[in-house]
Formats: sequence, C-alpha cells, structure tokens
Amino acid sequence: MPRYALKVEYDGAPFAGWQRQADQPSVQGAVEAALAKLERDVPSIAAAGRTDSGVHAYGQVAHCDMAKDWDPFRLSEALNYHLKPLPVSIVACARTDDEFHARFSAVERQYLFRLVTRRAPVTHDDGKVWQVSQPLDRDAMQAAADHLIGLHDFTTFRAAMCQAASPVKTLDELRVEEHPYPGGQEFRFHVRARSFLHNQVRSFVGTLERVGAGSWTPDDVKAALEACDRAACGPVSPPQGLYLARVGYPVDPFAAA
Amino acid sequence: MPRYALKVEYDGAPFAGWQRQADQPSVQGAVEAALAKLERDVPSIAAAGRTDSGVHAYGQVAHCDMAKDWDPFRLSEALNYHLKPLPVSIVACARTDDEFHARFSAVERQYLFRLVTRRAPVTHDDGKVWQVSQPLDRDAMQAAADHLIGLHDFTTFRAAMCQAASPVKTLDELRVEEHPYPGGQEFRFHVRARSFLHNQVRSFVGTLERVGAGSWTPDDVKAALEACDRAACGPVSPPQGLYLARVGYPVDPFAAA
Repeated sequence: MPRYALKVEYDGAPFAGWQRQADQPSVQGAVEAALAKLERDVPSIAAAGRTDSGVHAYGQVAHCDMAKDWDPFRLSEALNYHLKPLPVSIVACARTDDEFHARFSAVERQYLFRLVTRRAPVTHDDGKVWQVSQPLDRDAMQAAADHLIGLHDFTTFRAAMCQAASPVKTLDELRVEEHPYPGGQEFRFHVRARSFLHNQVRSFVGTLERVGAGSWTPDDVKAALEACDRAACGPVSPPQGLYLARVGYPVDPFAAA
Repeated sequence: MPRYALKVEYDGAPFAGWQRQADQPSVQGAVEAALAKLERDVPSIAAAGRTDSGVHAYGQVAHCDMAKDWDPFRLSEALNYHLKPLPVSIVACARTDDEFHARFSAVERQYLFRLVTRRAPVTHDDGKVWQVSQPLDRDAMQAAADHLIGLHDFTTFRAAMCQAASPVKTLDELRVEEHPYPGGQEFRFHVRARSFLHNQVRSFVGTLERVGAGSWTPDDVKAALEACDRAACGPVSPPQGLYLARVGYPVDPFAAA
C-alpha cells in the first residue's frame, strides 16, 4: 500500500486532542473520517505528537496507507474538501517509502507557546494565546530557561500520567522572545527537543511565567529541576497558547512537495 | 456629564457591524448594553468609523457621557466585565473635554487588510483574513496602489449606498507588505486617510488582488480611477480581512492612559 506523509495544521479548540476517542471529537478522528470518504478500510493513522485537548498545530505530521496510488496534491485537496468546515487543514502531502513512520522516524519536535500580557481581554486571539494581566520580565524568564537546556532528569516537569520510559531527556532550545502586542506584550517560547514528556512544555511555561512575574527566581527553577520531584513544579500553563510547530526527520518528507 | 473616550478592539464576525440595529447584534449595541449595566439612561455612543458586518477593529474609538465621575481605568474594567464573553474589549479609556467627539474630532483613519495566499484552507486565521489560492505579485500591486495615492475623485471605489457628501478624498498611504505565512504568503495593506468612502478599502483591495494575480495591469487601475465610474471597479473584497487599526486626533486622547 502506498504510504503518504501529511502535514496537518489545526485549531485545537473544538477537539479533545489529537488522539481518537470513543465519545469526543479528535483531530485524528476528523482526518480518518475524511480518509474514509476516499477509500474503504483505510488503516488507522499515526502522528508525531499526540497533542492534548485544546493544543494547536502548525506542523503536525501523520502518515496514512492508501489502497490507491494517489497523486499527493490531489489527496490533500480531497482531504481538505471533506475536512470542511472543521479547523483542520492538510498543508502538505508527500509520498514516502514504507519505512517512514510519522512518530518513530521523527528526530525533533518544535513547539511554540504564545503568552500575552495585557489587562483588557484579548479578542482576535481568544483561545489562541494564554493571557495574563501582569507584566513579565523576559530576561528573568530566559535566565531561568537557560537552567533547563541540556540533558536532565525532567521528573519535575512531567505529568503523573506520562508514559515515557525515562524522564531523562535533552532539551535543545528554550528561547523566550518578546514582541509588541496591541495594549500589551507578547512572549513567544520556542522549545525544541528530540522528544518531550507529557505536559513538559506547559510545565516549563507555567513555571517560567512565575519567574517573569517575580514570584520565583531563576535559581528557584534550577532547584526545582534538581529536586526531580513533580511537587516542585510551578503551575502548568493552560493549553490554548501551545502549538506543535514542526517535526523534524532525517530526510524532510515534504522537501519536494 | 463627564465624557470618556474608549478605544475598542473587536472581532467583527458575530456582529452585523458597528452600528446599532433593531434585530441584529452590533458592536455599538454590545458596548451600550455594558454601559447600561453601570448607569441608567446612558446616552447613545458615537464612534469614529462605522465598520461593516464582519469587519474587525484593533483601535476603534468611541465616546460616552456618564452621569458619575468614573475613574477611567475602573470604567474600562467594569465595561470589560459586562462585555464578557463577547469578543469586544475596551483596551484604553480616558477622560476627555466636552468638545471631544470620536467621529467629528478625528483627523485620520488607518485600516489594515490581511490577505493570505495559500491553497490549503487557513485554520487559525479563519474569519480573520481573506484567503485566495493563487500567488500574487506584490510589486505589481504596489505599482497599482501608487496610482491611487493623493487627491482624487474616488467615485470608482465607492459603494452605491455611500452617504459621503463628496467622492473627492486624499489618500495618504496605501502600502502593500509581503510576509511569510505557513504554507503560503501574507499580504498586508496599510491604508491611511482623513476619511474614507463606503467600501473604499475593500474596493481597493479587491481591485489590487486582480493586479497581483495578473488579470489587471497597474495602468488598468489608473484608468479605472480616472473613469470615475463605479462599473469600472474590480471586485469588492470580502470583509473578514479588514481591521480598523487606528484613529488619529489632533491631540491623542489616550496619551496619558
């Protein structure tokens, strides 16, 4: 069966996450329902990151196996037709070899987290950013983030329900950018690693926000990391500022698409 | 009665425009309903630009007269509390003198129009941009836009229902920026004038899009302008890419806010 890689963009708000569930809408379920309009008995699809409820994506990657030899562009067009009016869009589609696996072939995940500081409620970005009312200190958040970069036991920043075999991971990037935002400021957290623990990015951002607000020092974050204790973590941020931005593979499956 | 200037941000999607209407939701109606929670018999409010159905704002300005002497910050907080969960937000509030009038004191309006070129449907910006599928030529659109800048009879770019006394206006700026957008390109039209005719910005953008696509030349736009004939106009763009970005006054009422 010919295998295809799909780059999927979605607004996570109406979904209970990526993963298919019996009684709730999921992004996987939406894509599989669109595939089912094209062929009978399409096998279940796999994705690089099983995003939580309310989490968005610019560049989720999934793969599917089709019976027919589809032109990749026509496959993406047909899927987008059947996905309407859901906020899920196939932004790239490419034929891959049979060894490609959206999850197990991935060697890097990049997340973006958008945090807006403003007193007045956001309107255009409602559901797309985490809004807090007090100003934040970018430099303090970056100093704290610098303690997290590298190879560490991230038990402190791992949800109790996490299924990863080991809490030891290498964090390659955690960069905090500050941008103007109408009536306030926007902070963008760029986070990159081979793989992540469950809730790791939201645990980072929720803790760094406390540093930005002055409740924690950067050294408190270092101590929390070294405690290797979930109870030492700061608050976990809400999901709506989080975006799966990009998945990296040894060879980019979409390079020619 | 103390007068207050309100800077209002809104997502226009759920509204039939700024202006209060008997049977449909409006932004003016939403703000007036919030004011009515604070005081009895608040007079009707006036705004700098009566945006159409589906048009958004970052910086609409309105003024209201209150019976009580409100602290401006507390007034904005109280209004935002009562505006929830509507996508309307008071982002600044200031006491003004009695001569200030949101509409008649304004000396400049700035609009932003967001146009995204991409084949796959947009998700995060659905309802926030005008999406077209073919690539566009920024330089050609700017060359055409340059013919529109300055003092002209804009009859060609004026809706039949326009109530302005004269079609002669000075267009101070019409600048086309190109930005990267995931899987495509974004074009931002920055448009600035003392005042505008009804549908003028959307008539500009719809016509310039035809230039960007190669159907019209920049000289065709010059000829259309000189025809002073509504029938010579290109298509009028849809409303959802348009934002009232800023209103200018001789003295910024929010300078101290």
